[in-house]
Amino acid sequence: MNATPELQHFKTQRLVIIGLGLIGGSLACALQKARAAGDVSIGTIVGCNRSLEGLQNAQQQGMIDEYSTDAAEAVKDADVVILGVPVLSIRPMLEQIREYLKPGAVVSDVGSVKKVVVNDMQELLADTGVHWVPAHPIAGSEQSGVSAARADLFIDRKIILTPPENSDPQAVATIDAMWRGTGAQRFHMSVDEHDRVLAATSHLPHLLAFSLVDTLANQDQGWDVFKFAAGGFRDFSRIAASDPQMWHDIFLTNRDAVVDALDLFTADLAQLRQQLMNEDGESLIETFKRAKAARDHFSGQFTKQDQIN
Amino acid sequence: MNATPELQHFKTQRLVIIGLGLIGGSLACALQKARAAGDVSIGTIVGCNRSLEGLQNAQQQGMIDEYSTDAAEAVKDADVVILGVPVLSIRPMLEQIREYLKPGAVVSDVGSVKKVVVNDMQELLADTGVHWVPAHPIAGSEQSGVSAARADLFIDRKIILTPPENSDPQAVATIDAMWRGTGAQRFHMSVDEHDRVLAATSHLPHLLAFSLVDTLANQDQGWDVFKFAAGGFRDFSRIAASDPQMWHDIFLTNRDAVVDALDLFTADLAQLRQQLMNEDGESLIETFKRAKAARDHFSGQFTKQDQIN
Repeated sequence: MNATPELQHFKTQRLVIIGLGLIGGSLACALQKARAAGDVSIGTIVGCNRSLEGLQNAQQQGMIDEYSTDAAEAVKDADVVILGVPVLSIRPMLEQIREYLKPGAVVSDVGSVKKVVVNDMQELLADTGVHWVPAHPIAGSEQSGVSAARADLFIDRKIILTPPENSDPQAVATIDAMWRGTGAQRFHMSVDEHDRVLAATSHLPHLLAFSLVDTLANQDQGWDVFKFAAGGFRDFSRIAASDPQMWHDIFLTNRDAVVDALDLFTADLAQLRQQLMNEDGESLIETFKRAKAARDHFSGQFTKQDQIN
Repeated sequence: MNATPELQHFKTQRLVIIGLGLIGGSLACALQKARAAGDVSIGTIVGCNRSLEGLQNAQQQGMIDEYSTDAAEAVKDADVVILGVPVLSIRPMLEQIREYLKPGAVVSDVGSVKKVVVNDMQELLADTGVHWVPAHPIAGSEQSGVSAARADLFIDRKIILTPPENSDPQAVATIDAMWRGTGAQRFHMSVDEHDRVLAATSHLPHLLAFSLVDTLANQDQGWDVFKFAAGGFRDFSRIAASDPQMWHDIFLTNRDAVVDALDLFTADLAQLRQQLMNEDGESLIETFKRAKAARDHFSGQFTKQDQIN
């Protein structure tokens, strides 16, 4: 992986964002703000969603310039199309819009898993003259939906681009420049590395949080057990409030990497359990010290923006 | 469990806090503040630690009125003695001070596990004429040490008292009133219930966080894996920065309840893994939805104070 060298000014005529959720909506807000500041040049920012009311609200709030509930219609003259839909909705959306995309258009996404997206794009966009540059902004939260969208969501956050090796350099530079306009840091990574790293630091922790909260809730139908939970548990379990459908898609599409990470974790946890059963305090404390040292180290890596949120 | 009905004004001549860490130091600060406001009446607040320099600093900051590095000396005329030391240090501390405690004195603690503390107090303080009222303020964090102490740490936090059934009602009311003076909510619970509930909502999450961070750190000696971790992982893993020695004591002294909770969790996690292997999306999403509903429910239970911290 390496930081992107291009420092191109993002300039496009028609940019369409399909799916105005937390990420798509925040991208629209961030680009509006960047345009107003002269940091990017965009003719028209178009929002596309199934909800007409949501689109009307988004336009009234100044989040988008135009809107359409018809994705095929919306992408017709688009130069850049960002798919802000859940990972498993990307393929059907591509099937819906592919024949309406103009040659030379650049398609990107915001999905948390990249292998499946790259495969879908490769299969459905090859031979169309359309470029595709998969991307993943690491800026989600347990909140979801357009109501949580904010223009500053991506400032100092990391965006990972996973363009295939034969990608058009100009298309890659376009998506890179768009994200630069939102204030994000951009990185390039291989698809496999992306999916492995995210499985470990994002997908597995979400699985553990969902699982633990469900286990505790099942033990105590009145949920009284949570009454005496402290700040540590509140923080630990916050991600269990994340969108179930989105995470369903992520786990199913990154299954192998998640299971690999889970199996490593489970094996180490079983060892910790054995040390506990053996009252092997020395091994326990060594593990805790190593974990604390790593956590203290990387907590210094979180940006100021991360600290606030 | 039930909230404490007594609304007694806390009044004592000599209060000794042994161990001025995050909890002991914050208790001293909170009681100083309450005394200044006329909410409690305390003749002298005495701090006791091994570090003379730390005690001198604490006195200069107005955290304590007097100090001693000799616990036996410090408790001689004490009416109330709070043991702010780690759980496994309580027994040796009781052995050191028991013969110097005056009859009628009330001893309490702040330990996160109660069975071992109750047993130690029962064994070492029976027949001394000294009362003991075990207590656990649920107000810790990944921070530790006197430098993290603050007068408002206990405001709206929950304090669990686990007095044995034959406890002196006046002694229980004394400790209850002291914590009331810090702004805390007080609850009474049986020792077994306390240790079971805390194993599930505090001790197990800490074990999982320590374990996951250690697993990830071991997979990637350069710790680069953490570079792309987002806010979710930061929150999830925050408790892995907690004090290793303190948590060593907690796990060893609450081993059985922690292992019970761990085994329930591990069994459910194995089931989730199987559903993932089977690509059983329906079951996955049901689990995530149940977890989200529980998390959304109890997140409403966190007090304003919790939300800030």
